Amino acid sequence: MDRIVLAYSGGLNASVAVAWLAQHYGAEIVCVTMDLGQGTDLESVRERALAAGAIRAHVLDVREEFARQHVLPALQAGAVFANGGPLATALGRPIIARKLVEIARIEGTSTVAHGCSDQGHDRTCLETPVHALMPGGRVIAPACEWDLTRPQQIEYARQRGIPLPAAERGSFDVDTNLWGRSITRGDGDDAWTDPPAGLFAITRDPDRCPDEPAFLDLQFEQGIPSAVSGVTMPFMDVIASVSTIAGAHGVGRVDASVSGPAGPAVREFHEAPAAVVLHLAHGELESLLIPHALLRVKRGISTEYAGMIDQGLWYSPVREAMDAFVATVQARVTGTVRIRLHKGSAHVVGRKPGLDEPPAESRKAD
Amino acid sequence: MDRIVLAYSGGLNASVAVAWLAQHYGAEIVCVTMDLGQGTDLESVRERALAAGAIRAHVLDVREEFARQHVLPALQAGAVFANGGPLATALGRPIIARKLVEIARIEGTSTVAHGCSDQGHDRTCLETPVHALMPGGRVIAPACEWDLTRPQQIEYARQRGIPLPAAERGSFDVDTNLWGRSITRGDGDDAWTDPPAGLFAITRDPDRCPDEPAFLDLQFEQGIPSAVSGVTMPFMDVIASVSTIAGAHGVGRVDASVSGPAGPAVREFHEAPAAVVLHLAHGELESLLIPHALLRVKRGISTEYAGMIDQGLWYSPVREAMDAFVATVQARVTGTVRIRLHKGSAHVVGRKPGLDEPPAESRKAD
Amino acid sequence: MDRIVLAYSGGLNASVAVAWLAQHYGAEIVCVTMDLGQGTDLESVRERALAAGAIRAHVLDVREEFARQHVLPALQAGAVFANGGPLATALGRPIIARKLVEIARIEGTSTVAHGCSDQGHDRTCLETPVHALMPGGRVIAPACEWDLTRPQQIEYARQRGIPLPAAERGSFDVDTNLWGRSITRGDGDDAWTDPPAGLFAITRDPDRCPDEPAFLDLQFEQGIPSAVSGVTMPFMDVIASVSTIAGAHGVGRVDASVSGPAGPAVREFHEAPAAVVLHLAHGELESLLIPHALLRVKRGISTEYAGMIDQGLWYSPVREAMDAFVATVQARVTGTVRIRLHKGSAHVVGRKPGLDEPPAESRKAD
Amino acid sequence: MDRIVLAYSGGLNASVAVAWLAQHYGAEIVCVTMDLGQGTDLESVRERALAAGAIRAHVLDVREEFARQHVLPALQAGAVFANGGPLATALGRPIIARKLVEIARIEGTSTVAHGCSDQGHDRTCLETPVHALMPGGRVIAPACEWDLTRPQQIEYARQRGIPLPAAERGSFDVDTNLWGRSITRGDGDDAWTDPPAGLFAITRDPDRCPDEPAFLDLQFEQGIPSAVSGVTMPFMDVIASVSTIAGAHGVGRVDASVSGPAGPAVREFHEAPAAVVLHLAHGELESLLIPHALLRVKRGISTEYAGMIDQGLWYSPVREAMDAFVATVQARVTGTVRIRLHKGSAHVVGRKPGLDEPPAESRKAD
Repeated sequence: MDRIVLAYSGGLNASVAVAWLAQHYGAEIVCVTMDLGQGTDLESVRERALAAGAIRAHVLDVREEFARQHVLPALQAGAVFANGGPLATALGRPIIARKLVEIARIEGTSTVAHGCSDQGHDRTCLETPVHALMPGGRVIAPACEWDLTRPQQIEYARQRGIPLPAAERGSFDVDTNLWGRSITRGDGDDAWTDPPAGLFAITRDPDRCPDEPAFLDLQFEQGIPSAVSGVTMPFMDVIASVSTIAGAHGVGRVDASVSGPAGPAVREFHEAPAAVVLHLAHGELESLLIPHALLRVKRGISTEYAGMIDQGLWYSPVREAMDAFVATVQARVTGTVRIRLHKGSAHVVGRKPGLDEPPAESRKAD
Repeated sequence: MDRIVLAYSGGLNASVAVAWLAQHYGAEIVCVTMDLGQGTDLESVRERALAAGAIRAHVLDVREEFARQHVLPALQAGAVFANGGPLATALGRPIIARKLVEIARIEGTSTVAHGCSDQGHDRTCLETPVHALMPGGRVIAPACEWDLTRPQQIEYARQRGIPLPAAERGSFDVDTNLWGRSITRGDGDDAWTDPPAGLFAITRDPDRCPDEPAFLDLQFEQGIPSAVSGVTMPFMDVIASVSTIAGAHGVGRVDASVSGPAGPAVREFHEAPAAVVLHLAHGELESLLIPHALLRVKRGISTEYAGMIDQGLWYSPVREAMDAFVATVQARVTGTVRIRLHKGSAHVVGRKPGLDEPPAESRKAD
Repeated sequence: MDRIVLAYSGGLNASVAVAWLAQHYGAEIVCVTMDLGQGTDLESVRERALAAGAIRAHVLDVREEFARQHVLPALQAGAVFANGGPLATALGRPIIARKLVEIARIEGTSTVAHGCSDQGHDRTCLETPVHALMPGGRVIAPACEWDLTRPQQIEYARQRGIPLPAAERGSFDVDTNLWGRSITRGDGDDAWTDPPAGLFAITRDPDRCPDEPAFLDLQFEQGIPSAVSGVTMPFMDVIASVSTIAGAHGVGRVDASVSGPAGPAVREFHEAPAAVVLHLAHGELESLLIPHALLRVKRGISTEYAGMIDQGLWYSPVREAMDAFVATVQARVTGTVRIRLHKGSAHVVGRKPGLDEPPAESRKAD
Repeated sequence: MDRIVLAYSGGLNASVAVAWLAQHYGAEIVCVTMDLGQGTDLESVRERALAAGAIRAHVLDVREEFARQHVLPALQAGAVFANGGPLATALGRPIIARKLVEIARIEGTSTVAHGCSDQGHDRTCLETPVHALMPGGRVIAPACEWDLTRPQQIEYARQRGIPLPAAERGSFDVDTNLWGRSITRGDGDDAWTDPPAGLFAITRDPDRCPDEPAFLDLQFEQGIPSAVSGVTMPFMDVIASVSTIAGAHGVGRVDASVSGPAGPAVREFHEAPAAVVLHLAHGELESLLIPHALLRVKRGISTEYAGMIDQGLWYSPVREAMDAFVATVQARVTGTVRIRLHKGSAHVVGRKPGLDEPPAESRKAD
């Protein structure tokens, strides 16, 4: 092996991985950093990759592609966790996998690497798509191979002159993309007490939200969000706009304790204001427009769709078949839903089928 | 046929039914009115029954039985509508059916009657249990047989000197019991506009709720709600207490538009503050305490349980089998959930397994 | 109303219906008889219709359309009863409904009639599609309205000079189309004893089948049966061919006792040699070719598809959505399955993916 | 670690494991061999264990326990593979796990070992129950750790004077217990050709079966098989008796090609005459006796039950809950089913509810 394409986030873990992989496998390391809307300065990330020893560092803006080809199908499929929480991190994995494979092809190698440690579904969600897209390829997870504690990683970086990233946010492990933010606490999982201050970043504490409610009119055309409160905009802008408004009203926090297959429950925090509000509105419109018998079958598909994402099967025939099902349903999902946002809660207060007639003036102008 | 046992609510419909049944079938009419927690003065209902021509009028307080034998199993089974709304009206039907059959046996007849008109599942939910409990019995639904408009009913009552009930609440059709309140509007189903003032009765408008949130600590012992914020109380008192507090914070309203098998969607309103909060807390505790593999199967059972209630199959082997499943799960559901109530929303903010140790003093006293 | 389009089978029931409808509704009766492969002489049926008083009698050969647009989707969807028995009668109803509606439009009326009595799903399966295709139309089921015993029907026919059909097969009620044959016994449902002689017509008694097994190589191209033992033929010919061979080896009998929602179980007989063998082969090929995760979801769709047919929802968005799902799966279902037929049993003994290479000679010829 | 309890089958693999574990872990090896009805001479197996270096070798007859506590619940739950094939190997794993743990406790150790290599679900099905029953215990799978080809294993055994087992059956990998036999071929998975001669051992080739069919009357009392053709016998004897008769008529072979999550389909062979016939009869009796609505929910439970076994979750709350469901259903399953066995096929030809009255004479004798 002479070249490894590494998914590089810019964190300590990833920087150590550059040096460790080069040393351990005697390989050239090519870093790939993807912009999924996490809001980090990716130019400086690229510089850190090179400083850590990468021979090349690619930065890819995949936001549009992520929104249209991954987030939208999941929204239309109604794919949420069993507790109603939206899938955000797991949705981002397949596109990361695809880009890694694309760059690997360009770089003439079939070996990729990533920084996931061996916990939860993260690794499955990334590695399964890589294998689906590049049969026979190899995936290395350095964090699962080495035996370095965090202080040892810092020491490892220092000895090799690898620049350390600015102090990372305390004890939280965060994954962000434009559809949502997942936070895991490193320090035990007390399910009773309030989450520590600073844990949530894009949603306001309901106690400090405006006293007046806000109303959002969300219009869908054939299942695609197409306008917010009368203003037509592309899907990515709908996400950004709804995220800002709903977040300002404290909507979109998920605080859940989820039992494991064995062992104690794990407390998970998510904040996904756009996802929560758009799933709510989309589901309401389907309740209004889709006949009962079809709705019942679609609910089964929603559960399967979420499970499919969770098992890393995005690039597989099962998604293709479910997407075909969902597409015929979406042809009927045109209308507007009015949502009331207030101090942490979002409620549907109105819904109507079809598109509003454009006002007389604008039609004259045509 | 010489005697008919009629489920009598005290409304115009029911009063006309007394006279109509006596005339049409040449039968003695025995009225039965049940207290399921609807909060009506049942003594005056009894008097109206006799004034309408009933030879006897029974009033039965079935609240305790309803709470323990019907509401609690549905809570533990997680039986809610597909949109998350709690089942209240449909839950009350089987106990009404059983009491009708019991009184019919006492009265020496096998004919019962009720006031449901032929809409929705109401009739199925009442008649199917009657037939299950009294095979070969007969059920009469006068409102499905006669052809009387409301003004004609009033005229019919006037001619026969039947006392008219005080003006009924405008254009709403309401069904209330201790687990919730369902409201149907008679005047079309505009799904876009706000519901008319006065439609909700036991939940406050979120806009006029206290500015400060309230917190409820809900303790469950083996799946049974056993204490509210540290105060131990029986299940019926938990319902009343949670209903009052949650209702005061605007929690428990459901405003949904539900597509029919054919034809346009119907807008339904429910308010069920205790049901919404207790289902939320109970579900959260199961997420914390029940292994993932069991939780997944139980979710399927929850859907089937709601469907079973909806189809009027309460007194049937399918409930028995699902209750046995649910019972083994509930043995593990002991713990406390903290709920934050604020301006129409209820969120879980803490959960812990097990029972709190009694404070040191109380233990000393032992 | 001046004209009624009646689905006319040629039986006593149907002949009486012609006269009864004309008399009762003062209408002109137009009869429609469809050839779904039941193997009856339809020209004589047409004559009987006219003799019974119809002003016109249409005979339509819908076999090709039935096979391609109804049987094939159900085969590909894997739609069988819970006990594995194939759906044949219920599959035929929607096409009968559609042709009735088409003829009604041509005849300038919106009233149709049929001979189903009010038992089982037969009526639902016919009337629901009619209402879906002709909203606002009217469906009359004379056999549910009149109060005529069989002897009374004969008397009714005699008095009006309606020719009686040749003695109908004893006490069986039979429905046949090219996909299968369903038999209901009129004389009680003893589930223990052997079915009476003569009940089965297209499958041989396993005791009297050949001693040597037969082998069928069934080839599918993208989910469509395309060749039998190396001979390429259209789907309708595959059905006929497999039906003959499998029937001769006693394969395809279903003898089941099915519990009702209430009351005793009903014994049902079916014989559907082609359906049984083709479902077996198609399912085996899917097991071979479809990834496990997709197969699991498809099994859920199969169950829903059978339920959809059973509820008469063929012309509805739920079929459209499920068909789209199934279509993406079928794109992968190309290969051959070898079936062994012997004295009533059919077993898979071989399966291979892809199409056989044409032999060298035939390629030279190209 | 000073002592390891090893599940010992007597094969080459297992004998090498005794020496390898002793050497590698410096531990005393205690062998445990269980009689699940595989029909091997277990006394000679014990001797081989000692000859291979075990310090002690336990032989346990667990047939009765296996039949009553594992096979019967799976039969009553209707737990079969998606293709209808019965679960036999996977059903045996949990009892092996439990006995290993019990012996480990007696032997004062918390380390157990087994011979499964890392293929399919075998390892999961064994290790998951061990961990459930002995949290914190350790499971060693030597065949997954060493890197020995079969010839190397033979050489390893020879060098250490370990007696080699009599030549093992060619290229098949076989697992047998009283409920069935699973065979995997080592030499590729051609899904088209006939299985090699000698692959099946307990079912006769349909071509060489008796020309006359056999009939079995299978009686169930509350879901428990209690009599075969009028002769009352315990469940284990029912299994043996049905297995012999059905096997002689070629019934119970499963030859299936099952697609993997990725990669090519795998061909599996099973023979399980008693399982196939008893599942058929039990299912038929449920169809006759269980109301439709309950049957539908039970079918979902059957699928989940098979999945639970497959995932090694026998000792977990999910089985407990499903067993409680199934138990209430079985209370209704009393009756007799008549099965016709002929040249490889088994068909239901009669069924009746309840128990037969004992004949007059036998009652006199009371």
